Amino acid sequence: MSVRIPQRILVAPSGFKESLCAESVATAIAAGVRRALPGVRVDIAPIADGGEGTARTLAVATRGALREMAVTGPTGSPVESHWVRLGGASRSVAVVEMAAAAGLSLVPADLRDPGATTTYGVGQLIAAALDEGAETILVGCGDSGTCDGGAGALQALGARILDVDGVEIGLGGKELARAARLDLTGLHPRVANTEIVLACNPHNVLTGPQGVARVFGPQKGASVDQVEELAAALDNWVTILERDGVGKGDLRRGPGSGASGGLGAGLAGGLGAVLRSRFEALLDSGLSGIDLDRRIRKADLVITAEGSIDFQTPHGKVPAEVARRATRYGVPVVALAGSLGRGAPAVHDVGIAAIASILTVPMPLSEAVANGEELLVAAAERMMRMILLGGTIAARTGSKKRNKAS
Amino acid sequence: MSVRIPQRILVAPSGFKESLCAESVATAIAAGVRRALPGVRVDIAPIADGGEGTARTLAVATRGALREMAVTGPTGSPVESHWVRLGGASRSVAVVEMAAAAGLSLVPADLRDPGATTTYGVGQLIAAALDEGAETILVGCGDSGTCDGGAGALQALGARILDVDGVEIGLGGKELARAARLDLTGLHPRVANTEIVLACNPHNVLTGPQGVARVFGPQKGASVDQVEELAAALDNWVTILERDGVGKGDLRRGPGSGASGGLGAGLAGGLGAVLRSRFEALLDSGLSGIDLDRRIRKADLVITAEGSIDFQTPHGKVPAEVARRATRYGVPVVALAGSLGRGAPAVHDVGIAAIASILTVPMPLSEAVANGEELLVAAAERMMRMILLGGTIAARTGSKKRNKAS
Repeated sequence: MSVRIPQRILVAPSGFKESLCAESVATAIAAGVRRALPGVRVDIAPIADGGEGTARTLAVATRGALREMAVTGPTGSPVESHWVRLGGASRSVAVVEMAAAAGLSLVPADLRDPGATTTYGVGQLIAAALDEGAETILVGCGDSGTCDGGAGALQALGARILDVDGVEIGLGGKELARAARLDLTGLHPRVANTEIVLACNPHNVLTGPQGVARVFGPQKGASVDQVEELAAALDNWVTILERDGVGKGDLRRGPGSGASGGLGAGLAGGLGAVLRSRFEALLDSGLSGIDLDRRIRKADLVITAEGSIDFQTPHGKVPAEVARRATRYGVPVVALAGSLGRGAPAVHDVGIAAIASILTVPMPLSEAVANGEELLVAAAERMMRMILLGGTIAARTGSKKRNKAS
Repeated sequence: MSVRIPQRILVAPSGFKESLCAESVATAIAAGVRRALPGVRVDIAPIADGGEGTARTLAVATRGALREMAVTGPTGSPVESHWVRLGGASRSVAVVEMAAAAGLSLVPADLRDPGATTTYGVGQLIAAALDEGAETILVGCGDSGTCDGGAGALQALGARILDVDGVEIGLGGKELARAARLDLTGLHPRVANTEIVLACNPHNVLTGPQGVARVFGPQKGASVDQVEELAAALDNWVTILERDGVGKGDLRRGPGSGASGGLGAGLAGGLGAVLRSRFEALLDSGLSGIDLDRRIRKADLVITAEGSIDFQTPHGKVPAEVARRATRYGVPVVALAGSLGRGAPAVHDVGIAAIASILTVPMPLSEAVANGEELLVAAAERMMRMILLGGTIAARTGSKKRNKAS
């Protein structure tokens, strides 16, 4: 009766929103796994999804360098922001996380007006990366607090957006209704020689009934009237982008054109940026230095995690993406969650074989967040013990069977 | 690559205090297991520990009959109580749960005075069982709210406890200081022909520094002075029991003599009752009809559970007892818990291979209690999926190894 145990485990979690970064989640899970199975080989791959935390996660994963700088925040006030110069084989790549300069969490609740917020700071981060000579700039989209079609970012990079009188328009999506011409002659000189790749949710499109103003406007604070006003402003803006810009492809309804309040269309049309599906850009492109699939193939078990696993998880969240890839290679996947919400078992349908919560005793959310790391370590140990027991039972059941047969 | 899965699972949980009876816990776990592994054979064995819920649990387990009746409660007011006539092969056995007539939960917080509370109602239940012709009476001890050395129970059964003037003393442990003589001539006539077995915690003794007044008096509401007064009263009582009673063995410091506030010594001394270790009496004696060991031996996996698993669990709680027995036969054991408190991993040292909590999201205790059944079903399914995955990984790892070797 010999028990076969996992030899190599890949830990590939998302960060826990408002609690732990992906790196901390991965490290805690690895520690718990080792408690149950000392000596096992654990490979740690924190996974970014383009939104909040993406730049820092990739910095840690590649031992890159964080560049901190102040930029114009989404509401026009200065905010502390950062971009990242990746390390290792990806030294020539800069990562700009749009949420770090124009994220929804940077917009105070009483200032949530997607007609006024701007991506100007995103352009400033891109300019800094250009100044430092990055060959490729990977722009993470997601968790945005803006709906300006990327106009602010273009303005920060030297583009001029003029009204019918030749006067520059102001910042914010609402201003785009007045736009008549895009002048790219003053654009940062290095844009032309730099590859700019956006990591987008491909389902986000700029215009039409599923356009970004109508789908995301309300959660960014827009009223019904404002939504229609913004949608019309973006329609006007894309017409100008198509006529005066450098982009190819469908800026209106192409995949990712609506990413981050239309930043996708703006950078594609104004800078010739390439829009790619976020996990393809972040995991497969070779840009990020995270070769997830190769690492999955080497593992006997993949452990993923997310702050909350629920009915939304199968729709493009990190655990679902990790499972999709692992399923391709027949590697089993389990997921740990800070909380298991409504519909969590739906993740079994996308290839996650088993799930577990980190909670131990009845507690308020604040306590779970405060003790997240400790809870994760203990939960990973419990999960690993359960898995190992499964191996023991299998061996025992098999051995009993063999005894009967003989 | 064939995966061996558990064919037969034994579910042997405790009840969850103040939430779910053992039967409900077992049924919920079985339902969750079947969700993950349809068609598996699940044997359900709810485990009683002698305390609250014991009579009902054994009634359900043996398809016995519940006899409801009003008795004198621990504070002298009437309470709704019950005893059980077991079913099946144990038809001749009655189960009297002392907590159902004299339990701590029947004593309102403002009346917690262990010098005043009485086991009179326990005697009434025993009398009812005698009247119905039970051949054996199994008395479950635990969760008591009394410290009267079983005097009240004897009084209810016809014994007279007299002071130096030949006057009957009143109810409650404090009165025992005045006791001078025990007169058993009026005892219920069937006592002599009936086997009375107590299921006790053997660590509870009547007198001395570890005596029941000193160890349990404070939590039953006694002050330091009251504790010493009670200890002296019990010393006086046991002297009379030894002289005028029918019991053999050490009524002062014998195992279980202090069970349930000295009910052990009282029924042993006054009725000749046999004191047995609680799990031996409840699981091994043949009396309860629950042949746990035989059922464990047939299982590939045993699932136990308790409302709270913590540092106390290894010390004689149901999951530890189940694990002790399963370990003897090499059958793996896992435990589910309503909450995993401080020191929970200590249960691994007593043979529980893995543990899991039923909690899914941050929630207050009241919510966990209100949704206990639903949470248990889902937790059992998650646990079973994790175990099955362990079997899959073992098979996969083995198959990879074989491929390499060939």
